[in-house]
Amino acid sequence: MADHISIGLMGLGVIGAGVATAVREQAHTLAQRIGAPVRIDRALVRDVRSRRSAVAEGLSLTADADDILKNPNIPLVIEVMGGEYPAYDHISAAIAAGKHVVTANKEVMAKHGPELLRAAADKGVMLRFEASVGGGIPIIGPLLDDLAANDISAVNAIINGTTNYMLTRMATDGLDYATVLREAQELGYAEPDPAADVDGVDAAFKLAILASLAFRTVVRDTDVFREGISRLAPEDFWYAEELGYVIKLLATARQTDGRVLARVHPAFLPISHPLAKVDGVYNAVELEGDLVDWAMFQGPGAGARPTASAILADVVAIGRAIVGGVRPAQPPLFDEALTIETVDNLETKYYIRLRASDRPGVMAQVTQVLGDLDVSLASVIQKEVDESGKAAEIVITTHVAREADVQQALKQLSTLDSVDEVSNLIRVEERIA
Amino acid sequence: MADHISIGLMGLGVIGAGVATAVREQAHTLAQRIGAPVRIDRALVRDVRSRRSAVAEGLSLTADADDILKNPNIPLVIEVMGGEYPAYDHISAAIAAGKHVVTANKEVMAKHGPELLRAAADKGVMLRFEASVGGGIPIIGPLLDDLAANDISAVNAIINGTTNYMLTRMATDGLDYATVLREAQELGYAEPDPAADVDGVDAAFKLAILASLAFRTVVRDTDVFREGISRLAPEDFWYAEELGYVIKLLATARQTDGRVLARVHPAFLPISHPLAKVDGVYNAVELEGDLVDWAMFQGPGAGARPTASAILADVVAIGRAIVGGVRPAQPPLFDEALTIETVDNLETKYYIRLRASDRPGVMAQVTQVLGDLDVSLASVIQKEVDESGKAAEIVITTHVAREADVQQALKQLSTLDSVDEVSNLIRVEERIA
Repeated sequence: MADHISIGLMGLGVIGAGVATAVREQAHTLAQRIGAPVRIDRALVRDVRSRRSAVAEGLSLTADADDILKNPNIPLVIEVMGGEYPAYDHISAAIAAGKHVVTANKEVMAKHGPELLRAAADKGVMLRFEASVGGGIPIIGPLLDDLAANDISAVNAIINGTTNYMLTRMATDGLDYATVLREAQELGYAEPDPAADVDGVDAAFKLAILASLAFRTVVRDTDVFREGISRLAPEDFWYAEELGYVIKLLATARQTDGRVLARVHPAFLPISHPLAKVDGVYNAVELEGDLVDWAMFQGPGAGARPTASAILADVVAIGRAIVGGVRPAQPPLFDEALTIETVDNLETKYYIRLRASDRPGVMAQVTQVLGDLDVSLASVIQKEVDESGKAAEIVITTHVAREADVQQALKQLSTLDSVDEVSNLIRVEERIA
Repeated sequence: MADHISIGLMGLGVIGAGVATAVREQAHTLAQRIGAPVRIDRALVRDVRSRRSAVAEGLSLTADADDILKNPNIPLVIEVMGGEYPAYDHISAAIAAGKHVVTANKEVMAKHGPELLRAAADKGVMLRFEASVGGGIPIIGPLLDDLAANDISAVNAIINGTTNYMLTRMATDGLDYATVLREAQELGYAEPDPAADVDGVDAAFKLAILASLAFRTVVRDTDVFREGISRLAPEDFWYAEELGYVIKLLATARQTDGRVLARVHPAFLPISHPLAKVDGVYNAVELEGDLVDWAMFQGPGAGARPTASAILADVVAIGRAIVGGVRPAQPPLFDEALTIETVDNLETKYYIRLRASDRPGVMAQVTQVLGDLDVSLASVIQKEVDESGKAAEIVITTHVAREADVQQALKQLSTLDSVDEVSNLIRVEERIA
């Protein structure tokens, strides 16, 4: 065996630089826990001339992926380029070349994870991806190993730090969406194009990964019902507080009778819900299992150092296997034949906010429409919204109803003369446990 | 290989019966995740006649440990007897006989863990103990594997559900200690002799295990400074709330400059502290690491089914290794030569509650004593406590001070004529992160 385990690092952005720094800083710890030193011997970048600081840190740069993929002395590749391509191609090629792979790539794992894991198993190498969900928080490991004796019935998570920061600001400081988005962008939490975060795309990738592992079936990101946070208004936060809830971008997947419903959307959570207390940029994942009941994992969901923590945990696991001459652990299986359920069949409670004329009979009309569709009311708040007294805001919470019925009701409500606008619909998630 | 992995179960109390039930209920899941079925072929009980229900469930009972320890067809022993002896002897004998062992025994692991782990490594078998801390919450796995790249600087935990339930009741309902203890006993949360819980003994065992693993050094339960909850009065909860804190039985260990200070005692935690939000019988463990910053694990810390979840996760890990013909993973090392620090050198903030005469000059005397010992005040509350106006309650919070100085100050205060009683001293733990 070589005097050290040689790593090829693909990508040297914020995360890649963080990994390189952590490998250097933690050299002693890593060597001790693995039983051999590890070293990044080659790093793939787009342009070798633009990365002087990396060179100064002793990294040998290349712009040619084959310098890593075809190097027989590199048994382990860390992919932190992000995005679907060329990351997917590189991961595939690394596996085909018999290399172990550690990736932080949620998009590749959400879209191609099951196929890549099978390829790795066939080739006798390991593909690990703890950093793809929840940054530094251990989630994949606990799910696959520590809760292995449980049949998992649900995953409930806050897995996008950007939106959780924004919603926390909106809740605590009464700011509107545009203001907190601008602030998040200035702080570097949100991208100039914030769609991946605010539209729930990032969370849907992560939820697809978690749901696939939890239910041992293939859940694609396209199977995840998705709704972003941009329609949330300060009023929604006022009413949430008045009613005893907080608003979170919830990522949740539940298995019921062989059907999986996975969804990412803003949700009212009771203030007593464990996820309700997770504020700011932090992430949390709660798993429900038949033995454990529930367990929740919480911490920093992003950032270079926490992400490096997860990546290097995977490096330690692979390094130990290399040193021990151990065969790769059995990969996660996706052998359960479950059906993807559509959100139309969701049964939950709802919060509906609408603007209507403030005149006798309006409330009767509104409740009639809901009642005809089997949507029964839990509470109603009506408030004047202008001084003329002509318009009112009506806020309704429902008992458990079927999504398709609620959507149908909203359509009918919006055609009523007396209703000016259906302002928002937010799902209410009571804690089942 | 046999057609199944044969398990010897030692102990058939609440936890043992839960394990037996879970092995039967989860047979399909376990077989799938391990790659072979598992079965409990022998169960050790004190009296075989008193366990008809177990027999009815198809368990073959014995009162002779050797029926398991000397049975060459049993490669795996689950020890759930609890207590130091004879559990320690049985675990030792099982290891010596070349059997893998899963234990939920916090006392044995706290007192003999490092020695038993070494014996297991020498013998080429695995000794796993996820259930010994935090019931069903994955903690040992995340600490040893998922956070393996971190140097851990601190462990902060609520790891006794009984006392957390009691403190939650005292805080939310203003009840006194004796009342909530009686209630906890009636609910079966507290034992008839509650000392192990309320005096912090149970928490100290668990903290010793966590600290040993986190800092890779041997921390015995006797190294843990320990103070129970029985001195807490309703007044302490009122003042805590007034000052923005909650009171928890904190188990915390920190490594600083090669010195480890581990302690279990009631503490004021700021309401913003992640552990402050953990209420009722639940447990939570927070780890601070140099890469991840912090990660917290939360869930049910006791109960037959959650404990079975942790025990069977260890069974899955060992089962996979048996099926795969894999050598045991490297055991945790305790190779760091760290010194145990005494609580005298603790530096933190303090809350002091005392009763004094309500007359001019008393406050000057009290603050003089503190000042002379370099204990500087952060806040002072003085309240009349009787209608005659002759006695006052004085509540002081300090800036960071050294424990030895604070204790010295308390001694001097209690000798003052004007001070009737030093009612309580509680350490205040601000969140460092």
